[in-house]
Amino acid sequence: MRFSLPPVMASALLASAAALSAAEWLDPAGAEPEADGSVLWYDLLSLGLQGRGWDASATATPYDRLPAAAEGKVPPAVWTLSHNSAGMYADFVTDATTLRAHWVLRSEKLSMNHMAATGVSGVDLYVRQDDGTWRWAAVGRPEATENTAVLLNGVPPGEREFRLYLPLYNGVSKVRLGIPSGSRLGRVAPRSGEPDRPVVIYGTSITQGGCASRPGMAHPAILGRRLGAPVINLGFSGSGRMEAALGELLAELDPALYVLECLPNMGAPEIRERVVPFVRTLRQAHPRTPVLLVEDRTYCGAFLVPSQAERNRTSREAYREAYRQLQAEGVEGLYYLEGADLIGHDGEGAVDGSHPTDLGFVRMADVMEPPMRLLLNR
Amino acid sequence: MRFSLPPVMASALLASAAALSAAEWLDPAGAEPEADGSVLWYDLLSLGLQGRGWDASATATPYDRLPAAAEGKVPPAVWTLSHNSAGMYADFVTDATTLRAHWVLRSEKLSMNHMAATGVSGVDLYVRQDDGTWRWAAVGRPEATENTAVLLNGVPPGEREFRLYLPLYNGVSKVRLGIPSGSRLGRVAPRSGEPDRPVVIYGTSITQGGCASRPGMAHPAILGRRLGAPVINLGFSGSGRMEAALGELLAELDPALYVLECLPNMGAPEIRERVVPFVRTLRQAHPRTPVLLVEDRTYCGAFLVPSQAERNRTSREAYREAYRQLQAEGVEGLYYLEGADLIGHDGEGAVDGSHPTDLGFVRMADVMEPPMRLLLNR
Repeated sequence: MRFSLPPVMASALLASAAALSAAEWLDPAGAEPEADGSVLWYDLLSLGLQGRGWDASATATPYDRLPAAAEGKVPPAVWTLSHNSAGMYADFVTDATTLRAHWVLRSEKLSMNHMAATGVSGVDLYVRQDDGTWRWAAVGRPEATENTAVLLNGVPPGEREFRLYLPLYNGVSKVRLGIPSGSRLGRVAPRSGEPDRPVVIYGTSITQGGCASRPGMAHPAILGRRLGAPVINLGFSGSGRMEAALGELLAELDPALYVLECLPNMGAPEIRERVVPFVRTLRQAHPRTPVLLVEDRTYCGAFLVPSQAERNRTSREAYREAYRQLQAEGVEGLYYLEGADLIGHDGEGAVDGSHPTDLGFVRMADVMEPPMRLLLNR
Repeated sequence: MRFSLPPVMASALLASAAALSAAEWLDPAGAEPEADGSVLWYDLLSLGLQGRGWDASATATPYDRLPAAAEGKVPPAVWTLSHNSAGMYADFVTDATTLRAHWVLRSEKLSMNHMAATGVSGVDLYVRQDDGTWRWAAVGRPEATENTAVLLNGVPPGEREFRLYLPLYNGVSKVRLGIPSGSRLGRVAPRSGEPDRPVVIYGTSITQGGCASRPGMAHPAILGRRLGAPVINLGFSGSGRMEAALGELLAELDPALYVLECLPNMGAPEIRERVVPFVRTLRQAHPRTPVLLVEDRTYCGAFLVPSQAERNRTSREAYREAYRQLQAEGVEGLYYLEGADLIGHDGEGAVDGSHPTDLGFVRMADVMEPPMRLLLNR
């Protein structure tokens, strides 16, 4: 059993042609001009921020990943990590031939010893191509808590749609885009043929994006681009442990698909105790929303260190037990994806045997894309 | 023309079965015991250091990549970068079930903003499997200029062969391996069926390993493992520019293959001026040694930013001109590898559009391995 679908799931795989978007141009009067007047700075929030489960009316700051009401209900570590902007991005259209970013970080800890500052605290730009696919365009490399970077320069004239991803392991208090005065910046209009309901991915440091080289290379971001679907990254480093409060928060959302990938942070006893009630909470609020249980990736050292192999084995055994119990209870729309293939089989997909590099994240996306595409009917 | 071989090159691709190595055990009297006597620390140099073009009799310190005589002859930046231990490694055998590393770095700059400290300043451990292939085992994560890390713990008893790679963008003044007293550590005996003459790769920041997540993921290291050949990494960040002094230094070596991949650091005028005399210098000293000219990888932003595409185009045009001129002069054993495929075609292989991540380095190794295998007749 690599990926298990009940027989009823026989939806055809339909390609949906994404219509090109029409822009709603922002009023330059709302931008801040550079001292010499050459550049106009627009607040990123004026473009609409994506990748959030709760919008600014519910959160303490616009760049928070959990609502203000979650404080004190979720474990302190989860609350702290909810200020990291993992998975947040803005889509926009511009005819600018030069593009700058200005971003102010919340924490002075710009990097980790196994993850570059570009991934922890950088911004990452993609451009939408004529065929509707996204292609990497530029990265903003952080040097301090406040950064200004020229992302693009000398691009040929023409309107293009871009996506800017925000830092994975840091928070932001302010993000601005700078374009030459005279150029235009606009919101992206809703696109026909693309879903508005998001995918919600709940998990660990790996979900949050450790250790991608830049924000666009975390697997939730890669999958969002490939599937043409909004993705909400609810990865909490070291803290994806399926507490009841997290189940209640996830149930507040109304996604097209839940992906639950907490195993790297949970031992077998916790899995046995928490998975079943967690899924029940989601199912009570959303009787039909598919829920995909994803196993942990195999530790790269498991072939050599028995304790690592044992951890993979016992966690998976407990997760599968929970899956079977939920099925026996008659829970429908529940799917299971094994972890053995997630980061490949050569031991090279992670920086430390646990956290994927870009190589591991691409491999994860390769494994997760087909079942997610099926469940999203895309 | 992706990879061009003269018709005379028709060697069959022969697999060589690597014989398992016999160890020459080190005398514990030469090790330094931990205060409580539980651990014996052996200097890495007592195992024999590989990946060096010049041994300690010629270099100012044992971990230098260029001979002391090169100081003042090579550009100052090259001299400074020659103190980085990029590409150096030690092979060893041990029956220890716990393995520690202690390493002292030369520079306090442990990371770069687009490259994690594990790659810049870390150590990276591989183990040789029964089939002769290498598999990742552990990484040593740097926290300061002096580091001690438990690389392995709880490994089942048995003799195993390991390879420890040293930092890519930092130098080391001292490296030690710690094993439980009572365990043994030994040198690896020369292996039948494997070449003793190395591959010499001369190039830029990319050759040096920017921006691999750990030392074993730079493409010279990957290729060394895959080909079962010693590789000497002469990558100098921002400074791979084919000066005459570098040609004379490379000519002092006697490799099985020269790989020249300096294009990312050279514009067309420099390429026109320097490539032909550089290759002539190598050829005069070594009439038969194959020389592989590798083009630059395509900038990930070249599809969008015309100046990047132009830089790729003009550099390659000049490199190919040099190749043709050398062929016209009757230089034999010269081979050419195009760069278009090096880091893939999806724009995701680099952190900044230029420097490969582990994803890009694996793709580079995939492209470079077959022609190098052919030229090494392995």
